[in-house]
Amino acid sequence: MTSLQNDCFIRALLRQPTERTPVWMMRQAGRYLPEYRRVREQAGSFMNLCTNPELACEVTLQPLERYRLDAAILFSDILTIPDAMGLGLHFVEAEGPRFSHPIRTEADVHTLIVPEPEASLRYVTDAVRLIQRELQGKVPLIGFSGSPWTLATYMVEGGSSKDFRKVKTMLYDRPDLLHELLGKLSDAVAAYLNAQIAAGVNAVMLFDTWGGSLTTGQYQEFSLRYAQRILDQLHVNQPTGIIPSILFTKGGGLWLESMAETGYNALGLDWQTPIGDARRRVGNHVALQGNLDPVALYASPATIRDEVHRILTDFGHGTGHVFNLGHGVHPDIQPEHVGAMIEAVHEFSPRFHA
Amino acid sequence: MTSLQNDCFIRALLRQPTERTPVWMMRQAGRYLPEYRRVREQAGSFMNLCTNPELACEVTLQPLERYRLDAAILFSDILTIPDAMGLGLHFVEAEGPRFSHPIRTEADVHTLIVPEPEASLRYVTDAVRLIQRELQGKVPLIGFSGSPWTLATYMVEGGSSKDFRKVKTMLYDRPDLLHELLGKLSDAVAAYLNAQIAAGVNAVMLFDTWGGSLTTGQYQEFSLRYAQRILDQLHVNQPTGIIPSILFTKGGGLWLESMAETGYNALGLDWQTPIGDARRRVGNHVALQGNLDPVALYASPATIRDEVHRILTDFGHGTGHVFNLGHGVHPDIQPEHVGAMIEAVHEFSPRFHA
Repeated sequence: MTSLQNDCFIRALLRQPTERTPVWMMRQAGRYLPEYRRVREQAGSFMNLCTNPELACEVTLQPLERYRLDAAILFSDILTIPDAMGLGLHFVEAEGPRFSHPIRTEADVHTLIVPEPEASLRYVTDAVRLIQRELQGKVPLIGFSGSPWTLATYMVEGGSSKDFRKVKTMLYDRPDLLHELLGKLSDAVAAYLNAQIAAGVNAVMLFDTWGGSLTTGQYQEFSLRYAQRILDQLHVNQPTGIIPSILFTKGGGLWLESMAETGYNALGLDWQTPIGDARRRVGNHVALQGNLDPVALYASPATIRDEVHRILTDFGHGTGHVFNLGHGVHPDIQPEHVGAMIEAVHEFSPRFHA
Repeated sequence: MTSLQNDCFIRALLRQPTERTPVWMMRQAGRYLPEYRRVREQAGSFMNLCTNPELACEVTLQPLERYRLDAAILFSDILTIPDAMGLGLHFVEAEGPRFSHPIRTEADVHTLIVPEPEASLRYVTDAVRLIQRELQGKVPLIGFSGSPWTLATYMVEGGSSKDFRKVKTMLYDRPDLLHELLGKLSDAVAAYLNAQIAAGVNAVMLFDTWGGSLTTGQYQEFSLRYAQRILDQLHVNQPTGIIPSILFTKGGGLWLESMAETGYNALGLDWQTPIGDARRRVGNHVALQGNLDPVALYASPATIRDEVHRILTDFGHGTGHVFNLGHGVHPDIQPEHVGAMIEAVHEFSPRFHA
């Protein structure tokens, strides 16, 4: 494996000294880039793009051509695992993901099989290998998965949901069945992330997009417990060094302490939580990633620079901060505004590492 | 004014001793009730229902016929003020509220006029007077308004929004203009709530449904500051006694301390925040209202009873708790499930007040 020319991101996750604050952006390979939209059109469908390693590699690398980013993130979807479990993932225009065979009955849960990643998810590990060949160690590559709870919401609801009524009714009335589902998903996610690690990713991130819909208590029992179970199975000690792990729960600001106890190297923060408060609460255990409001990128470049400065100042001096948005970039953001954010991190952050 | 036969709700808000925990439910007068749907059909449109005092009175009282509730809440919409400001409120089937004339320019903000409630919102105060005549002091009547920030989101976006990009772009790029808008809305809300108080409501609640979309700092500057400005103008000292006030910010769990400092008598909690933690944090300043997950009402009556018991136990002994959902009841909940919740509060809560 090629050693990294820029390991600023990895060092920040491990809270080792860096010269500046590393920066990348959730959904940095995405629709806001015209060059992405061209490849997406060429692919015909979103799933074709995800399952074609050459095209997935191409769009993964696109933002690195434009911006001074400190990490690449594998282009894929969070719902590849349920698709590999046979639920039939497809995308409905303007409505988002749908499953042809959602989880409806007890038997649906019992008969679910944990997929073998190098068989049914080979297109993902092929993409990882191809991206790493192309990247040539320029920056680290991040692998990722949806969290078991977040995957379960889509699998039981059959797609996106505003209130998660089906999966939460299962939680309230059949917690045993939900635990069975989440257990299988945890093993599937661990195997999937381990396959990505074996194929060469340099860090992994778990996206718990819908953890914030739970009550305190439910979050620990039905989401965090399984994030822990995954981490316990991850092959983080590699010959090339430690593979750092990031746990992101949107809406999880109340729960940073229990999240930090899991052993993930870093926590992703949404935009609600002040990063300075988060550092005071858990910064002696974990690095922090975030947390510019994605909607701030609609504002003027001058305002964006002010917001970047405010967040860097709020985190303060020293290592342990990876600059990012608090959620994925919106598809209609102007690429120049993303550039303003990234350049501001490069310009302002060195003084916080002097 | 008739004195109250049941003032358990008022006493709990003022943290005075009660024999049991009072209970009411956000959107208790609503679509989940077949008798509501009949009146709604008769009215022709949602706005017709809101603006007809006799029909608004009828649906306000309906849930009291079915359930042992400790408060009635005026049936109205949170967007009556912007409608009275001339924005042209209407409802699009399956999409929610829309404004024909949203706030788009600086001139739109400058020319907005604070409405005189007894003129353009007379239908609301007429409804209050009629409801109080019909209620005959059986239980208190709650008046309410949307918060300035929440009203501003609808007025600038032109309706509902997932990400509030227009109003937040104003926040980032033109904070001066947003402050002007929020200042006018605060004065309008204060006048509106004072008119409801003059017409006879026994308590008031401010609904900050979208405060949780803000960052910490933004919340204090663009939402809470105006909640404070409203409270400072409210005529809470009445010959009949104090009119207690409740502040509800959905997604505001991180901010309970600053919310409690405003002087509102009670804070509404969504379902994410554990009510026991909230009590430890701010229970020496304010009463707490909440906080069953509205989706828990899809579960079986036995599960609902368990959840009610869990929340009562989490709050613990003594006064200062008003049982409620963490957000409005969903339109397709079975009325029997609501009954199970309310009866469980009656059954379990006296032991916490012994």
